[in-house]
Amino acid sequence: MPSSKSTSLDFNAALTEKVQIVNETLNRLLAEQREVPENLREALEYTLSAPGKRIRSAMVLWSCELIGRREDGNARTAAAAIEMVHTYSLVHDDLPAMDDDDLRRGRPTCHKAFDEATAVLAGDALLTLAFEVLAERVDDPALATRLISQLAQAAGPGGMIAGQIADLRAENTVGSVEMLEYIHTNKTAKMFRCAALMGGLCGKATPEQLDALGRYGLAMGLGFQIADDILDVSASSEQLGKTAGKDVKAAKCTYPAVVGIEEARELERALAHEAVAALESFGPGAQVLRQLAMALLDRNR
Amino acid sequence: MPSSKSTSLDFNAALTEKVQIVNETLNRLLAEQREVPENLREALEYTLSAPGKRIRSAMVLWSCELIGRREDGNARTAAAAIEMVHTYSLVHDDLPAMDDDDLRRGRPTCHKAFDEATAVLAGDALLTLAFEVLAERVDDPALATRLISQLAQAAGPGGMIAGQIADLRAENTVGSVEMLEYIHTNKTAKMFRCAALMGGLCGKATPEQLDALGRYGLAMGLGFQIADDILDVSASSEQLGKTAGKDVKAAKCTYPAVVGIEEARELERALAHEAVAALESFGPGAQVLRQLAMALLDRNR
Repeated sequence: MPSSKSTSLDFNAALTEKVQIVNETLNRLLAEQREVPENLREALEYTLSAPGKRIRSAMVLWSCELIGRREDGNARTAAAAIEMVHTYSLVHDDLPAMDDDDLRRGRPTCHKAFDEATAVLAGDALLTLAFEVLAERVDDPALATRLISQLAQAAGPGGMIAGQIADLRAENTVGSVEMLEYIHTNKTAKMFRCAALMGGLCGKATPEQLDALGRYGLAMGLGFQIADDILDVSASSEQLGKTAGKDVKAAKCTYPAVVGIEEARELERALAHEAVAALESFGPGAQVLRQLAMALLDRNR
Repeated sequence: MPSSKSTSLDFNAALTEKVQIVNETLNRLLAEQREVPENLREALEYTLSAPGKRIRSAMVLWSCELIGRREDGNARTAAAAIEMVHTYSLVHDDLPAMDDDDLRRGRPTCHKAFDEATAVLAGDALLTLAFEVLAERVDDPALATRLISQLAQAAGPGGMIAGQIADLRAENTVGSVEMLEYIHTNKTAKMFRCAALMGGLCGKATPEQLDALGRYGLAMGLGFQIADDILDVSASSEQLGKTAGKDVKAAKCTYPAVVGIEEARELERALAHEAVAALESFGPGAQVLRQLAMALLDRNR
């Protein structure tokens, strides 16, 4: 058996490989859009090329490999699409009327680097493109419509947008654990579940396999958001690539604020183990997805 | 032959019927979204229920009837989807960072009635929902992906968004006719073409029929935008249901500003006739689409 250190090296190499594939796919899909005006293209390239962790898109690719033995063109398209939707949500979330943030992924936010109108429209463009590439590049229309349905449900007014609205309304209120769970489930976890499901669908998963992947993704997403909230209070802006301490400043409703940092760490651990447990039936093939779950915890050490 | 007056009465009755169908479809699709938070649902209902002209969605329904003999569930879904995308574009276009408008369809704009964050997110929600309903409610996946592709291309960074960016950049510049044509084609006409094409696709149009419908839609869209620009300088805010004279105030690049109001009226007439001419091969079945083109001109009398 490999040592823990070499396992972690293997995992990092595997993640780097996926990040590269996702970046190449995003570049190619954007280059294929011929009629985009130059200043808008610059804004799209700027936001898409920022050094993101690409966790959602790596989950799509690995979930597809797990079920279908290999990652294929459909999974790459799905990975790029979910990354476009995630990126659009950051661009709009950073707007002055929303979280009003200056720094994202280590660089000025889109409306700071360009202007507010361009940021609104660049976000709109990324959201639209995500559905376009799924409709046009996935080679089976029945699969394409299922992927579009999953992505729209996860990102739409009964998912990510519901979470963002609740998050904004919860500012300056004494949050309950129920409210936190609602916000995190909608704002973050449904998109993680969607990533696992999209990968599974590309690999032709059975309903039972989709159910297990969905539980994995949901636990991963909740754990990831709690880890993010912990990092916001414990790391510097330089480490984060975005403004640190902004949740406290904005009086955001977060787990560290509501239950304390120790209990938040406990919950994060429990969710990582819940994610790992959801993969039990898949055997050794799911190793990299398990490592992804455990890597969450390492971010806070 | 019916008199011109009774023809116009028939046309108005036919349009009213379609508006009702579109409104009912929009209400039903929104009601079926169970997990939308209450305040977001209010904003969505507010924007979707504003008394819009529903010209794009009526074009979808009539184009489907023309080709497939009858309007069906797929065409109703497509009509609702294009109306959602059009409405999202108005909500974002009215934002302070964009056109900064207070009045739309006779009522306060979304960010005035709610707040800016809600308007950003309501727009995002409508755009996402449009693709969701096409993916989930159209009964043939191959048709659904073609509709999604058309809508995304028309609304995306090589279409409507390109036009909006160019429109914003053209403020306070001496516009050329070429620039105007670029803006109007992208901002407005591609969505009109898309409406005609979506209807045609639902009715199982041949490539030749799609080509004719596309030419009709494009001419309609250009003519409609010119009519809109003329109204902006010649009508009151009350007549318009939105702020009158705002193009001049914002130093917008419009046909009346660049070529003068008389030449703009001339061009509008020519485009209405071009739209009618594109329908020649369809015979009497296309009468209502021809009336729609000629109704454009009546708006300015």
